[in-house]
Amino acid sequence: MSTYRPLDATALTAHLATLPALSARLGGSPESWTAREVSDGNLNTVFIVSGPAGSLCCKQSLPYVRVDPGWAMPLERTLFEARWMQTLGAAVGHQIPALLHLDEGLFLIVMEDLSTHKVLRTALIEGDAPAGFSARIGEFVGHAGFATSWRARPFEDLFALREVFARNLSLTRITVDLVMTDPYRQGCARNRWLSPALDSDVAEIQSDSVLHAGVTRLQERFLGTTQALLHGDLHTGSVMVHNEDVRVIDGEFAIFGPLGFDLGMFIANLVMNGYALPDRESWMQDEISLLWSGFCNAYRQSWDGNTGCGDVGSLATPEETTHDQDRFFREVMRDCAGFAGLELIRRTMGFAQAADFAAAPDTAWEAEARRRALHTGRRLIVKSALIEDIEALLDAL
Amino acid sequence: MSTYRPLDATALTAHLATLPALSARLGGSPESWTAREVSDGNLNTVFIVSGPAGSLCCKQSLPYVRVDPGWAMPLERTLFEARWMQTLGAAVGHQIPALLHLDEGLFLIVMEDLSTHKVLRTALIEGDAPAGFSARIGEFVGHAGFATSWRARPFEDLFALREVFARNLSLTRITVDLVMTDPYRQGCARNRWLSPALDSDVAEIQSDSVLHAGVTRLQERFLGTTQALLHGDLHTGSVMVHNEDVRVIDGEFAIFGPLGFDLGMFIANLVMNGYALPDRESWMQDEISLLWSGFCNAYRQSWDGNTGCGDVGSLATPEETTHDQDRFFREVMRDCAGFAGLELIRRTMGFAQAADFAAAPDTAWEAEARRRALHTGRRLIVKSALIEDIEALLDAL
Repeated sequence: MSTYRPLDATALTAHLATLPALSARLGGSPESWTAREVSDGNLNTVFIVSGPAGSLCCKQSLPYVRVDPGWAMPLERTLFEARWMQTLGAAVGHQIPALLHLDEGLFLIVMEDLSTHKVLRTALIEGDAPAGFSARIGEFVGHAGFATSWRARPFEDLFALREVFARNLSLTRITVDLVMTDPYRQGCARNRWLSPALDSDVAEIQSDSVLHAGVTRLQERFLGTTQALLHGDLHTGSVMVHNEDVRVIDGEFAIFGPLGFDLGMFIANLVMNGYALPDRESWMQDEISLLWSGFCNAYRQSWDGNTGCGDVGSLATPEETTHDQDRFFREVMRDCAGFAGLELIRRTMGFAQAADFAAAPDTAWEAEARRRALHTGRRLIVKSALIEDIEALLDAL
Repeated sequence: MSTYRPLDATALTAHLATLPALSARLGGSPESWTAREVSDGNLNTVFIVSGPAGSLCCKQSLPYVRVDPGWAMPLERTLFEARWMQTLGAAVGHQIPALLHLDEGLFLIVMEDLSTHKVLRTALIEGDAPAGFSARIGEFVGHAGFATSWRARPFEDLFALREVFARNLSLTRITVDLVMTDPYRQGCARNRWLSPALDSDVAEIQSDSVLHAGVTRLQERFLGTTQALLHGDLHTGSVMVHNEDVRVIDGEFAIFGPLGFDLGMFIANLVMNGYALPDRESWMQDEISLLWSGFCNAYRQSWDGNTGCGDVGSLATPEETTHDQDRFFREVMRDCAGFAGLELIRRTMGFAQAADFAAAPDTAWEAEARRRALHTGRRLIVKSALIEDIEALLDAL
């Protein structure tokens, strides 16, 4: 195991040259390789290394937040991303990049290069996202969610996994603070919003006790429910698309929790894009429908093929299973609506905002899109107990 | 750390003589000590060692189930009991015995001797249980439950605890199989029942698809909810009483789960005693009411004094907290009703039965008591979604 040091392009290339399997993938001699930094998210450095025969994506943790070096951050997050890939690989196949190498000392993972792909958020902003990508994301959540559920495997397997991901503390702390606490706190220095346009909307959100009760309920659902292994940060920046090929990346926030968290977060990011850009809303509603049906079909299909493999549902006949499925999907939708609401609010007035808003045609449009996001977010949180199917969700947007 | 070997009375006394603090508690010389085996539960050996100055209770794991030496069982369960005592000590004080010594190699714990106390189940059967003991049990569940909840502590603390108790696999397997699976399976060799009197009742339970759907829901609640650290086996044999002093023992099944599991299991054991013995029912209903009010008062009091210490509820004003409490207690009661139903059924026709039935005045009474337990169990499981307060619960018994 190597000793940790942040690798620049030269050091990374030299390190790869010591690893025969990866060198063979790149081909030629190390002198012919090029390393290009493509760091894009908030947390890590990412290089694409290319050689005559192929290319690799190399991601390394830094001991601080990349966009805010004063914010210290344990290195371990890369290990959780690798564990997430290892855990889900068999269930989701090519819906995530292939993990080629993990160095636990350098906190470095090397994976399949997806340079031919585009970050979905960018594609959405630029208007060239292939229609129907959301169905693939729904299938991903369905396959990953069922494979890590009490219905698919004996609880001993899942307790062991729960033990691994229960150590993912620093990124879960970010989720608990940034997604479900800070935006509702008056005077929290991490919040920012379009001012003065949204001042009164923000003040309402921070003093609304009915809303805060809904947020409390979602905090409890997130921390107290271990329904499946979540991606934990499934926004449109965590997805890469290339024609029909849709990949989910960046699983470093992985944690056991309620499935509606992943689905709701993704939906909220579609909604913000739909509000920010003209003539997108009907398209946005279609994508959300596809996400939900993709999820339900994949989850149901896995469930039908697996009855009796896990501890939950081991007694059920096929008929009872169908009944149980209907109840289950209603519950997931309630969570989904609530978590979508949290994401809409925190991406509009919290620390990490959705880039989509800046793509609005003018400032008035942007202000209105942001205002709608806040109001829809509030409505989804407060009414989530009543939102039990996709029609009710679409009506509430 | 010592190497594991099962200790008989002589070996145990010799081992205690090597430990100065425990020797001092016993007083005199080791030759003056007596060790008396009092093993009573299904799983471990227990000795009371007495000396001129005091006495100790010594509990050691065996590598198999004491009542069925063909059933292998990992030794680690004593460690989980010790962790449970260490975790809850500050929150529940004298409601559990004091832990004096843990030897992780011998899988031996030494604790306060409660020989002046009586096992509650025995006291109930013999008719000399002090009225009102259930209030103390309710307080115990309330204090332990709040102290290990997301409202009392930052999630990092609780994830660390969850990691520890997620390793308690062998006893959780017993719970999953014996409490929530086996009784509903036709032909499962571990089941037994008063035959032929209950043959048709058992056949109904094992072929009732509505009931099985309810059991599936409870399996999912038990495995998928991490509301608090549970005792995990809180029946009337896990409680010792002496006048006003009520202690909870045997925490080796400790696991994170829904609070209603502990409360429901205790209630079911009161109900079976009430059905088995004449003229007990009004008294039984009083005790169940005391359990519930003791729980709610203790939990609410801890909550009122702790707002903002944990991650869940950190935004809430006192007014919102009251609202949230009402919602919370309704949810706990729904779980409580369902888990009470599971316990009634498994203690009447499963592997480990309630001794109370054998104390019925005659066989016809016993058969009727067992039949009522099965029918009440079914009703509680099927109707649990509608049982949201103590009145509804008492009506369903």
